[in-house]
Amino acid sequence: MRLGLLFLFSLCVLLVPRAVPNMAAAEPPSNAPAYTADGKLVFPANYRQWIYLTTGMDMNYNPNAQMPPGHSMFDNVFVNPEAYKAFVKTGTWPDKTMLVLEQRMSASKGSINKSGKYQTNEVMGREIHIKDEARFPGGWAFFGYGADMKPAQQIPAQAPCYSCHQEHAAVDTTFVQFYPTLLDIAKAKHTLAAGYLKDEAVASPGNTYQKTE
Amino acid sequence: MRLGLLFLFSLCVLLVPRAVPNMAAAEPPSNAPAYTADGKLVFPANYRQWIYLTTGMDMNYNPNAQMPPGHSMFDNVFVNPEAYKAFVKTGTWPDKTMLVLEQRMSASKGSINKSGKYQTNEVMGREIHIKDEARFPGGWAFFGYGADMKPAQQIPAQAPCYSCHQEHAAVDTTFVQFYPTLLDIAKAKHTLAAGYLKDEAVASPGNTYQKTE
Repeated sequence: MRLGLLFLFSLCVLLVPRAVPNMAAAEPPSNAPAYTADGKLVFPANYRQWIYLTTGMDMNYNPNAQMPPGHSMFDNVFVNPEAYKAFVKTGTWPDKTMLVLEQRMSASKGSINKSGKYQTNEVMGREIHIKDEARFPGGWAFFGYGADMKPAQQIPAQAPCYSCHQEHAAVDTTFVQFYPTLLDIAKAKHTLAAGYLKDEAVASPGNTYQKTE
Repeated sequence: MRLGLLFLFSLCVLLVPRAVPNMAAAEPPSNAPAYTADGKLVFPANYRQWIYLTTGMDMNYNPNAQMPPGHSMFDNVFVNPEAYKAFVKTGTWPDKTMLVLEQRMSASKGSINKSGKYQTNEVMGREIHIKDEARFPGGWAFFGYGADMKPAQQIPAQAPCYSCHQEHAAVDTTFVQFYPTLLDIAKAKHTLAAGYLKDEAVASPGNTYQKTE
């Protein structure tokens, strides 16, 4: 996940057209992924009732990136409950996992709040990172959605989000290093990816996540 | 909710002793509140699987408050699913509603992240705002928990969190004005509190939330 970071965002997500808000009518009957006949992924309208993983604010993996003035967003991440339960047991994601990233504008002055940031009802974008092994080479694919949440085409596999997740994500191409309740589970189940362990070894040579227990 | 704001935090929550981490063993069998014989509220250990409402960062209602240097926290808010479903239908909270505020330390540099903030596994505190009409005068009460999440005594009703929520919260003493997916429901159901509408009228005289539809 973490497509929402600016340098990936600009390459992956701003390609998604913004349309007039209009709730998607084609909600799937369960949390299993649903596709249109032409291979678009239907957005899961009930994702706000899924399991919450974390929230970041204005995260960026590029040391040279600049946030546009006045632009500050929260990124909320949710996962379907079936996948969450499997992760707690196994330390990794089952087939049909869907992670939803919701990008929400922040505000500081409103009601009685004087400082810090809170979330507004202005959603800037939504993205899905889905594992569907029969459908996608490598198992995973990204999809970006406009405000209408209409079914979306897959973001092409050449986009940099794929290679970044492949190289740096802690578990099975997902950024579990930023999901605080899941990282220790992955550590205990020995499911941390080689690329992540290599990054950690460079960043902090004594890091306990590299040691076998 | 929003006890976590510094000026209330210092008065309500820092009174709670910090203890050695040790998961509470007495998880209630359902999402209904459970109390010990001496009236302490048992912490709902499965709250991270409840419905997520929002996240704030370093919010403060006091214009003169200063955040301690290097101290930056996310506040994540969850509610039990039964109460969420009732709110969606009615625009207000049923009896036995429990809102959980989780205060989590932020970090900026870690893994491949270079700027912005992400959540760490360091939880600074947890608080509950509960509606239990047969038990609490006024219907609602606050409880603060240390790292051990042991059953807690009610925060005394004279604490300023009660009067602040009573005077300024958007719906039934809860800060729905900061829960982006719920505020429009309350507006549509005409459940916004008089104190909140008065605050909004002073802050922005043309605010649509004051108008009947």
